[in-house]
Amino acid sequence: MSSSTAPLAPELAVSEWFNTPAPLTLAALRGRPVFLHTFQVLCPGCVAEAIPQVQRIERIFANTDLQVIGIHTVFEHHSAMSPVTLRAFLHEYRLRSPVGVDLAEEGSEVPVTMQRFGLRGTPSSVLIGRDGSILHHAFGVEDDIAVGARIAMALSTRVPEIAPTAMPDQKGACVDGKCAVPSPSKDAA
Amino acid sequence: MSSSTAPLAPELAVSEWFNTPAPLTLAALRGRPVFLHTFQVLCPGCVAEAIPQVQRIERIFANTDLQVIGIHTVFEHHSAMSPVTLRAFLHEYRLRSPVGVDLAEEGSEVPVTMQRFGLRGTPSSVLIGRDGSILHHAFGVEDDIAVGARIAMALSTRVPEIAPTAMPDQKGACVDGKCAVPSPSKDAA
Amino acid sequence: MSSSTAPLAPELAVSEWFNTPAPLTLAALRGRPVFLHTFQVLCPGCVAEAIPQVQRIERIFANTDLQVIGIHTVFEHHSAMSPVTLRAFLHEYRLRSPVGVDLAEEGSEVPVTMQRFGLRGTPSSVLIGRDGSILHHAFGVEDDIAVGARIAMALSTRVPEIAPTAMPDQKGACVDGKCAVPSPSKDAA
Amino acid sequence: MSSSTAPLAPELAVSEWFNTPAPLTLAALRGRPVFLHTFQVLCPGCVAEAIPQVQRIERIFANTDLQVIGIHTVFEHHSAMSPVTLRAFLHEYRLRSPVGVDLAEEGSEVPVTMQRFGLRGTPSSVLIGRDGSILHHAFGVEDDIAVGARIAMALSTRVPEIAPTAMPDQKGACVDGKCAVPSPSKDAA
Repeated sequence: MSSSTAPLAPELAVSEWFNTPAPLTLAALRGRPVFLHTFQVLCPGCVAEAIPQVQRIERIFANTDLQVIGIHTVFEHHSAMSPVTLRAFLHEYRLRSPVGVDLAEEGSEVPVTMQRFGLRGTPSSVLIGRDGSILHHAFGVEDDIAVGARIAMALSTRVPEIAPTAMPDQKGACVDGKCAVPSPSKDAA
Repeated sequence: MSSSTAPLAPELAVSEWFNTPAPLTLAALRGRPVFLHTFQVLCPGCVAEAIPQVQRIERIFANTDLQVIGIHTVFEHHSAMSPVTLRAFLHEYRLRSPVGVDLAEEGSEVPVTMQRFGLRGTPSSVLIGRDGSILHHAFGVEDDIAVGARIAMALSTRVPEIAPTAMPDQKGACVDGKCAVPSPSKDAA
Repeated sequence: MSSSTAPLAPELAVSEWFNTPAPLTLAALRGRPVFLHTFQVLCPGCVAEAIPQVQRIERIFANTDLQVIGIHTVFEHHSAMSPVTLRAFLHEYRLRSPVGVDLAEEGSEVPVTMQRFGLRGTPSSVLIGRDGSILHHAFGVEDDIAVGARIAMALSTRVPEIAPTAMPDQKGACVDGKCAVPSPSKDAA
Repeated sequence: MSSSTAPLAPELAVSEWFNTPAPLTLAALRGRPVFLHTFQVLCPGCVAEAIPQVQRIERIFANTDLQVIGIHTVFEHHSAMSPVTLRAFLHEYRLRSPVGVDLAEEGSEVPVTMQRFGLRGTPSSVLIGRDGSILHHAFGVEDDIAVGARIAMALSTRVPEIAPTAMPDQKGACVDGKCAVPSPSKDAA
């Protein structure tokens, strides 16, 4: 689970946001844990189990710096689950946290964020640590106790003090024989 | 609850049917009990409670002559709950019994069938007896035991043998100073 | 389900009653439907599912002539589930309908009523018709809708008018080559 | 939540243990977090909600050093909830973690451990930190997510490195005008 070995979360690709005055990026959220959940408004398991769990997470961690984000990852019945339907859904189900519409890609049923995270379906969730690494991902809804425990662990992790060291080669980012993925945290720093 | 005093159910007004090869009318169903349920695909109580109850009713009374009918009575977020969305919903939620789209009326948010039955919202249900009378109606979801008991009572009621007496005046239908609503049961006799 | 073919319910054998001023017998209840449920206070399925269902039945059929009866059929952990424990259980769980302690039999783990009805374990239930016949029995908890429907059917059955015919041979009770179990209903008539 | 301000948990007073080869004391468990839950076998909320939650906690934190302990705090219907009944209950409900019978006190309905912790009834729970302090206590069952989060926080707390310092005055333990209860935590200080 340490930041040196856990994979970094890819960036979100969103065509339209709800419940937020401005678009969100994981890069800009570096330093805070993120609970990312993906759903479709006509997915029975999402509506019956995942969304209610997200609402409990919203409530219980309201006073922490956890950021909850939903992504509407439509990969079937596209015309039946347009942003107009999503907007009414969010209103009726009283979901408060930001929700983005996963960016559609020409010629693909599966939208971009879903592809980047390699998600298998809905509902899925990804817990992202303060350092931007993927701490846990799940397809389906997991037990509340385990979810609460994992989020608490993510919250309790200290933010590593990031020394503003000059990197010798921004583009290559290969040092001492090791090549790092260009980290979004530098953009956010 | 006797047929002489209970109000007759008005006829359905439907613009599009799903899960049935041909349109249904209550008139043609006279002689069979009908469990009519109304819903909207973005109504949380419908999805969480009413639709699962309808599925239990479908299963438990599968070998009886009960007719289950759903009516999609959209009275808000109209563009978010089009027939395209309804069709995908029925597919995802595995609803087997016939569902009709309540007929929209120019200048009214509330569709026609919903108006005729005087329904207050969704989910609602109406239990219709073999003689076409309204035996029970409810706004919200009622206890399974009570619902099962009422349907069983409706099923156990014998269809009164209707003697094919010539009515003096089919159109007027006023006899002995009393005027009856032209009853569809005569068509079914 | 007709009274001529369904087996007659055997009589209860009870060592102690709760929630009733006087002992009950099925013979004396002839003419009324009876919902008989058996349980043990340390049976998880009884406590979690069967007892709450019995309470829903008590409430929903409160205005009918259905008689609900519980039988505490202890067949294991006998010293752990004494009548003292049962009494406190009934108090804590607010069970209102009569409950009898199934009569223990010397040399048998299984008490007498449980043996007579051939019950396989707890929770079990037996629905007894107005004529004393067993309409349905179940090991485990069944769906509320089905339970409600069956009780409603039992309630809607007319009590057959019992002609006071003289029986040729009370003890033998064999007529026209057929031998009937001596019916308790004659005692109750 | 720091050990310097949170009250220390008092010691358990138990007359009989189940599910453990040897009696447990909180003193001997110092260094590990403890989830202490109290219940009665005839308490409906305990059986329906608290015990299942304890079983989820047992399962989800199985690979951590959390110690789950149950205390049977009978404060009513004493003869109905003897250790014999408790033993059968633990068998039927498959509770694996240690359970102690709260020590009865002559002339008091409320047993000793329950008094020491000032518990208001059942079900109650107390989360005890690695340093022996009470991190959280609750009367009734709390949300799984919050429970999971609190236990994770207790687990993530580092055990303070125990310096083998000689204490100047074990008996008095008064320093700078403040007198501490002779605490097992001094070993951990």
